[in-house]
Amino acid sequence: MDISQRIELALDATVTRATSSGCPKQLAAALSYAVFPGGARVRPRLCLAVATACGDEFPLLADSAAAAIELLHCASLVHDDMPCFDNAELRRGRPSVHQNFGEPVALLTGDALIVAAFELLGRCIPSEPVRAARLLSIVGSSVGSPSGIISGQAWECEETVPLAEYHRAKTGSLFAAATTAGALSGGGQCDLWRTLGEKLGEAYQIADDICDMVADPAIRGKPANRDADRGKPNAADALGLDGAIQRLKRLLGEAVECVPACPGQAELRVHIARSAQPYLPKELALVAA
Amino acid sequence: MDISQRIELALDATVTRATSSGCPKQLAAALSYAVFPGGARVRPRLCLAVATACGDEFPLLADSAAAAIELLHCASLVHDDMPCFDNAELRRGRPSVHQNFGEPVALLTGDALIVAAFELLGRCIPSEPVRAARLLSIVGSSVGSPSGIISGQAWECEETVPLAEYHRAKTGSLFAAATTAGALSGGGQCDLWRTLGEKLGEAYQIADDICDMVADPAIRGKPANRDADRGKPNAADALGLDGAIQRLKRLLGEAVECVPACPGQAELRVHIARSAQPYLPKELALVAA
Repeated sequence: MDISQRIELALDATVTRATSSGCPKQLAAALSYAVFPGGARVRPRLCLAVATACGDEFPLLADSAAAAIELLHCASLVHDDMPCFDNAELRRGRPSVHQNFGEPVALLTGDALIVAAFELLGRCIPSEPVRAARLLSIVGSSVGSPSGIISGQAWECEETVPLAEYHRAKTGSLFAAATTAGALSGGGQCDLWRTLGEKLGEAYQIADDICDMVADPAIRGKPANRDADRGKPNAADALGLDGAIQRLKRLLGEAVECVPACPGQAELRVHIARSAQPYLPKELALVAA
Repeated sequence: MDISQRIELALDATVTRATSSGCPKQLAAALSYAVFPGGARVRPRLCLAVATACGDEFPLLADSAAAAIELLHCASLVHDDMPCFDNAELRRGRPSVHQNFGEPVALLTGDALIVAAFELLGRCIPSEPVRAARLLSIVGSSVGSPSGIISGQAWECEETVPLAEYHRAKTGSLFAAATTAGALSGGGQCDLWRTLGEKLGEAYQIADDICDMVADPAIRGKPANRDADRGKPNAADALGLDGAIQRLKRLLGEAVECVPACPGQAELRVHIARSAQPYLPKELALVAA
């Protein structure tokens, strides 16, 4: 089974469980809507690519980690799109969850996705308790407070925003969870894989900022120039478009270089070199590394 | 150490961790504000009372379960108070979290409390993997979808609300988690303890409905007649005040009767008989069972 199939199967099993008998209809519909069809599934693909490169020793853990990370990412999108934050009407080319189901259901959908992610990780404990405990800690700290994606989003509520800390928490933390959780599940030494995740998180943030500035909203599935409109920091704005592209290429090159030794190192390097392309506009073809 | 001290210590350790170095200031302040000072701590007190009655064999598990359940309850209060739900200005006698910190921080505070609760449970895995796995499953299902408190709240977004299912999910599920998690952590057989939790959850819901109708808002710390104003189902309204009080007494009597055999059965029965009193208005002295 390829990586995409593994991700969709694990997500489907979890959403099916969460929307099973007894679930209020609106909540059930919104949970499916928030997860399917997905975006690029960047984080779970990275997680499984790393697990595979490390030997894929514990595939149940790897699939659960990948799906949990994606569910938490989806939860953050649902909540970040709400009127009190980005007030985004579109997501993945169609109405955002609160636009389609109303704010109350959107709020609960994000909450339920968070809980479903941790229940999924909890189900790994019986077969692999030691690794499951580390997995839960890796994923939990990458999402929660003081330095996960929730804290990253909370920096937007402060008067002064330390840019590096903001990006590290808001984007980098979940990418670092993807690489470390992937390594742990694959049989590798997870601590060695953090830097790769952090570099890819930074690269993704810059790619997203470039996208926000130049991409066609019809292709991207969400409006352009949201950052400028909302006064949010944007690397393409700060560095200029050429500067941002150079920086993105440099980061991807560094990411390729820093892949730790593992059975599938060569294939993983190829995966990473190509990984930024799908979420960049076509006119910005990258040849990284 | 008595039950209250154990609860506050476990909560304090978790909130301290979540608000440690690197946490944005507003989020850190709101996390503390949402948890301290607490309300009656009904659920964690019930959890530890059951654990104690069963022999208190795994106190780390019991304290973690009690604190996790309270953190999840606090998260639900923060989100339920928000403008898209109850739009409650007051909670525990002072401004609600979104009133004090704004909606964005309140939304993230609820999210971060959910994550902190599961991280706390995850830290029990290394010492007691089998019980920790069950604990995570008990607590997760009592909170998430399809039938936990999040689903209970989601029933309010449906056109037709099945009352029994709504109350069982919205209130009963977390009480059932408190008794079953308490029994599991104390060394008892957790499946035997679900009925007690469900009866107490129903009793608490009725006590809260009575309170909503008759209590002095200054004493209760939140406005009166919110249910009627918002068209929400209220038992005191449906059964009449006397009918609701009779039903509450009957439920408490049944709860006392159904306490499973355990070393501390007698003391637990006393705890339960008194348990509804603190959150009822003074003029409604109960002599239950």
